[in-house]
Amino acid sequence: MQPNVYEANCPSRQLLDRIGDTWSVLVVVTLAEGIHRYTELAKRIEGVSPKMLTQTLRGLERDGLITRTVHPVVPPRVDYALTELGHSLYALVEGLEKWAETHIEDVQAARAAYDATVQAYSAK
Amino acid sequence: MQPNVYEANCPSRQLLDRIGDTWSVLVVVTLAEGIHRYTELAKRIEGVSPKMLTQTLRGLERDGLITRTVHPVVPPRVDYALTELGHSLYALVEGLEKWAETHIEDVQAARAAYDATVQAYSAK
Repeated sequence: MQPNVYEANCPSRQLLDRIGDTWSVLVVVTLAEGIHRYTELAKRIEGVSPKMLTQTLRGLERDGLITRTVHPVVPPRVDYALTELGHSLYALVEGLEKWAETHIEDVQAARAAYDATVQAYSAK
Repeated sequence: MQPNVYEANCPSRQLLDRIGDTWSVLVVVTLAEGIHRYTELAKRIEGVSPKMLTQTLRGLERDGLITRTVHPVVPPRVDYALTELGHSLYALVEGLEKWAETHIEDVQAARAAYDATVQAYSAK
Protein backbone atom coordinates (compact mmCIF):
# COMPACT_ATOMS: atom_id res chain seq x y z
CA MET A 1 0.00 0.00 0.00
CA GLN A 2 1.34 3.42 -0.95
CA PRO A 3 1.54 5.95 1.91
CA ASN A 4 -1.12 8.61 1.42
CA VAL A 5 -1.42 11.65 3.67
CA TYR A 6 -5.06 12.11 2.63
CA GLU A 7 -6.01 8.90 4.49
CA ALA A 8 -6.82 9.67 8.10
CA ASN A 9 -5.14 6.53 9.45
CA CYS A 10 -2.06 6.47 7.25
CA PRO A 11 1.10 6.84 9.39
CA SER A 12 2.35 9.47 6.92
CA ARG A 13 -0.53 11.73 8.06
CA GLN A 14 0.81 11.72 11.63
CA LEU A 15 4.31 12.30 10.28
CA LEU A 16 3.06 15.37 8.41
CA ASP A 17 1.71 16.69 11.74
CA ARG A 18 5.16 16.27 13.26
CA ILE A 19 7.26 17.83 10.50
CA GLY A 20 4.99 20.84 10.01
CA ASP A 21 4.96 21.59 13.73
CA THR A 22 6.50 25.00 14.46
CA TRP A 23 8.78 23.84 17.28
CA SER A 24 10.08 20.96 15.16
CA VAL A 25 10.73 23.34 12.26
CA LEU A 26 12.68 25.75 14.47
CA VAL A 27 14.77 22.96 16.05
CA VAL A 28 15.61 21.39 12.68
CA VAL A 29 16.63 24.71 11.12
CA THR A 30 18.75 25.62 14.16
CA LEU A 31 20.53 22.25 14.22
CA ALA A 32 21.28 22.56 10.50
CA GLU A 33 23.69 25.33 11.56
CA GLY A 34 25.54 22.84 13.78
CA ILE A 35 25.42 20.91 17.06
CA HIS A 36 23.62 22.74 19.87
CA ARG A 37 23.18 22.11 23.58
CA TYR A 38 19.79 22.03 25.20
CA THR A 39 20.33 25.43 26.83
CA GLU A 40 21.39 26.97 23.52
CA LEU A 41 18.23 25.72 21.82
CA ALA A 42 16.08 27.00 24.68
CA LYS A 43 17.67 30.43 24.36
CA ARG A 44 17.50 30.66 20.56
CA ILE A 45 13.89 29.49 20.21
CA GLU A 46 12.12 32.21 22.16
CA GLY A 47 8.87 31.35 23.89
CA VAL A 48 9.27 27.57 23.93
CA SER A 49 8.58 26.09 27.37
CA PRO A 50 11.10 23.58 28.78
CA LYS A 51 8.37 20.92 28.68
CA MET A 52 7.54 21.60 25.03
CA LEU A 53 11.20 21.74 23.98
CA THR A 54 11.96 18.43 25.74
CA GLN A 55 8.91 16.82 24.16
CA THR A 56 9.85 18.14 20.69
CA LEU A 57 13.46 16.93 21.01
CA ARG A 58 12.37 13.48 22.22
CA GLY A 59 9.93 13.16 19.32
CA LEU A 60 12.53 14.22 16.76
CA GLU A 61 15.06 11.80 18.27
CA ARG A 62 12.58 8.92 18.24
CA ASP A 63 11.74 9.69 14.61
CA GLY A 64 15.42 9.51 13.67
CA LEU A 65 15.73 13.18 12.72
CA ILE A 66 18.18 14.22 15.45
CA THR A 67 20.69 12.53 17.76
CA ARG A 68 21.11 13.20 21.47
CA THR A 69 24.57 12.72 22.94
CA VAL A 70 25.17 12.81 26.68
CA HIS A 71 28.75 13.65 27.65
CA PRO A 72 29.85 12.15 30.98
CA VAL A 73 31.15 15.37 32.46
CA VAL A 74 30.13 17.37 35.52
CA PRO A 75 27.74 19.08 35.04
CA PRO A 76 26.39 16.72 32.34
CA ARG A 77 26.49 18.10 28.80
CA VAL A 78 23.85 17.09 26.27
CA ASP A 79 24.35 17.82 22.57
CA TYR A 80 21.78 17.61 19.82
CA ALA A 81 22.67 17.16 16.14
CA LEU A 82 20.79 16.65 12.89
CA THR A 83 20.92 13.17 11.30
CA GLU A 84 21.11 12.54 7.56
CA LEU A 85 17.33 12.06 7.54
CA GLY A 86 16.99 15.34 9.43
CA HIS A 87 19.13 17.07 6.81
CA SER A 88 16.83 15.82 4.05
CA LEU A 89 13.94 17.55 5.82
CA TYR A 90 15.90 20.72 6.48
CA ALA A 91 15.75 22.18 2.98
CA LEU A 92 11.96 21.94 3.04
CA VAL A 93 11.32 23.40 6.48
CA GLU A 94 13.86 26.14 5.96
CA GLY A 95 11.75 27.14 2.97
CA LEU A 96 8.69 27.39 5.21
CA GLU A 97 10.54 29.57 7.67
CA LYS A 98 11.78 31.91 4.93
CA TRP A 99 8.33 32.01 3.33
CA ALA A 100 6.78 33.08 6.64
CA GLU A 101 9.38 35.83 7.07
CA THR A 102 9.16 36.98 3.44
CA HIS A 103 5.39 37.02 3.08
CA ILE A 104 4.19 38.17 6.49
CA GLU A 105 3.51 41.66 5.10
CA ASP A 106 1.39 40.31 2.22
CA VAL A 107 -0.54 38.20 4.70
CA GLN A 108 -1.09 41.11 7.07
CA ALA A 109 -2.38 43.23 4.18
CA ALA A 110 -4.75 40.42 3.18
CA ARG A 111 -6.02 40.16 6.78
CA ALA A 112 -6.70 43.89 6.97
CA ALA A 113 -8.64 43.77 3.69
CA TYR A 114 -10.61 40.72 4.84
CA ASP A 115 -11.47 42.25 8.20
CA ALA A 116 -12.57 45.51 6.54
CA THR A 117 -14.88 43.58 4.21
CA VAL A 118 -16.40 41.61 7.07
CA GLN A 119 -16.93 44.83 9.06
CA ALA A 120 -18.55 46.59 6.12
CA TYR A 121 -20.85 43.62 5.62
CA SER A 122 -21.81 43.51 9.31
CA ALA A 123 -22.61 47.24 9.31
CA LYS A 124 -25.23 46.86 6.58
CA MET B 1 12.58 45.47 11.88
CA GLN B 2 13.22 42.24 10.01
CA PRO B 3 10.64 39.49 10.60
CA ASN B 4 12.21 36.70 12.67
CA VAL B 5 10.41 33.46 13.43
CA TYR B 6 12.68 32.85 16.42
CA GLU B 7 11.08 35.80 18.23
CA ALA B 8 8.06 34.65 20.18
CA ASN B 9 5.99 37.75 19.37
CA CYS B 10 6.98 38.22 15.73
CA PRO B 11 3.88 37.86 13.50
CA SER B 12 5.93 35.56 11.24
CA ARG B 13 6.01 33.03 14.11
CA GLN B 14 2.21 32.78 14.08
CA LEU B 15 2.27 32.57 10.30
CA LEU B 16 4.65 29.61 10.52
CA ASP B 17 2.10 27.90 12.80
CA ARG B 18 -0.54 28.41 10.13
CA ILE B 19 1.41 27.25 7.09
CA GLY B 20 2.84 24.15 8.76
CA ASP B 21 -0.57 23.05 10.00
CA THR B 22 -1.56 19.72 8.47
CA TRP B 23 -5.07 20.76 7.44
CA SER B 24 -3.73 23.90 5.77
CA VAL B 25 -1.10 21.85 3.92
CA LEU B 26 -3.70 19.38 2.65
CA VAL B 27 -6.08 22.15 1.52
CA VAL B 28 -3.34 24.09 -0.29
CA VAL B 29 -2.03 21.00 -2.10
CA THR B 30 -5.54 19.95 -3.11
CA LEU B 31 -6.44 23.41 -4.42
CA ALA B 32 -3.22 23.51 -6.45
CA GLU B 33 -4.88 20.81 -8.59
CA GLY B 34 -7.77 23.19 -9.31
CA ILE B 35 -10.89 24.80 -7.89
CA HIS B 36 -12.78 22.60 -5.41
CA ARG B 37 -16.13 22.87 -3.67
CA TYR B 38 -16.46 22.55 0.08
CA THR B 39 -17.94 19.06 -0.18
CA GLU B 40 -15.12 17.90 -2.46
CA LEU B 41 -12.51 19.10 0.02
CA ALA B 42 -14.35 17.41 2.89
CA LYS B 43 -14.39 14.14 0.98
CA ARG B 44 -10.77 14.24 -0.19
CA ILE B 45 -9.23 15.19 3.16
CA GLU B 46 -10.25 12.19 5.23
CA GLY B 47 -10.78 12.65 8.94
CA VAL B 48 -11.20 16.44 8.94
CA SER B 49 -14.28 17.53 10.90
CA PRO B 50 -16.64 20.07 9.27
CA LYS B 51 -15.78 22.53 12.05
CA MET B 52 -12.03 22.15 11.51
CA LEU B 53 -12.33 22.36 7.71
CA THR B 54 -14.45 25.52 7.92
CA GLN B 55 -12.01 27.08 10.38
CA THR B 56 -9.02 26.17 8.18
CA LEU B 57 -10.66 27.58 5.03
CA ARG B 58 -11.63 30.81 6.79
CA GLY B 59 -8.08 31.24 8.10
CA LEU B 60 -6.54 30.61 4.68
CA GLU B 61 -9.01 33.04 3.07
CA ARG B 62 -8.29 35.75 5.65
CA ASP B 63 -4.55 35.26 5.12
CA GLY B 64 -4.97 35.79 1.36
CA LEU B 65 -3.97 32.24 0.40
CA ILE B 66 -7.31 31.13 -1.03
CA THR B 67 -10.44 32.75 -2.42
CA ARG B 68 -14.02 31.77 -1.60
CA THR B 69 -16.66 32.32 -4.28
CA VAL B 70 -20.35 31.91 -3.55
CA HIS B 71 -22.46 31.22 -6.62
CA PRO B 72 -26.07 32.45 -6.38
CA VAL B 73 -27.69 29.19 -7.37
CA VAL B 74 -30.05 26.84 -5.55
CA PRO B 75 -28.66 25.04 -3.65
CA PRO B 76 -25.80 27.57 -3.09
CA ARG B 77 -22.45 26.55 -4.54
CA VAL B 78 -19.22 27.62 -2.86
CA ASP B 79 -15.90 27.28 -4.67
CA TYR B 80 -12.42 27.58 -3.21
CA ALA B 81 -9.34 28.44 -5.27
CA LEU B 82 -5.68 29.13 -4.59
CA THR B 83 -4.47 32.75 -4.93
CA GLU B 84 -1.08 33.74 -6.34
CA LEU B 85 0.24 33.95 -2.77
CA GLY B 86 -1.18 30.49 -2.12
CA HIS B 87 0.62 29.16 -5.18
CA SER B 88 3.92 30.52 -3.87
CA LEU B 89 3.40 28.44 -0.73
CA TYR B 90 2.30 25.35 -2.63
CA ALA B 91 5.72 24.22 -3.83
CA LEU B 92 6.98 24.19 -0.25
CA VAL B 93 4.09 22.38 1.39
CA GLU B 94 3.86 19.87 -1.44
CA GLY B 95 7.47 19.01 -0.59
CA LEU B 96 6.46 18.36 3.03
CA GLU B 97 3.66 16.08 1.93
CA LYS B 98 5.95 14.11 -0.39
CA TRP B 99 8.66 13.92 2.27
CA ALA B 100 6.19 12.43 4.76
CA GLU B 101 5.05 9.83 2.22
CA THR B 102 8.59 9.02 1.06
CA HIS B 103 10.25 8.77 4.47
CA ILE B 104 7.56 7.23 6.64
CA GLU B 105 9.33 3.85 6.47
CA ASP B 106 12.67 5.32 7.59
CA VAL B 107 10.91 7.07 10.44
CA GLN B 108 9.08 3.92 11.50
CA ALA B 109 12.37 1.99 11.51
CA ALA B 110 13.96 4.73 13.64
CA ARG B 111 11.04 4.57 16.09
CA ALA B 112 11.33 0.79 16.45
CA ALA B 113 15.07 1.11 17.13
CA TYR B 114 14.49 3.90 19.66
CA ASP B 115 11.77 2.00 21.47
CA ALA B 116 13.93 -1.16 21.62
CA THR B 117 16.80 0.83 23.16
CA VAL B 118 14.53 2.42 25.73
CA GLN B 119 13.09 -1.00 26.63
CA ALA B 120 16.53 -2.59 26.94
CA TYR B 121 17.61 0.27 29.19
CA SER B 122 14.50 -0.02 31.39
CA ALA B 123 15.03 -3.79 31.77
CA LYS B 124 18.50 -3.34 33.23
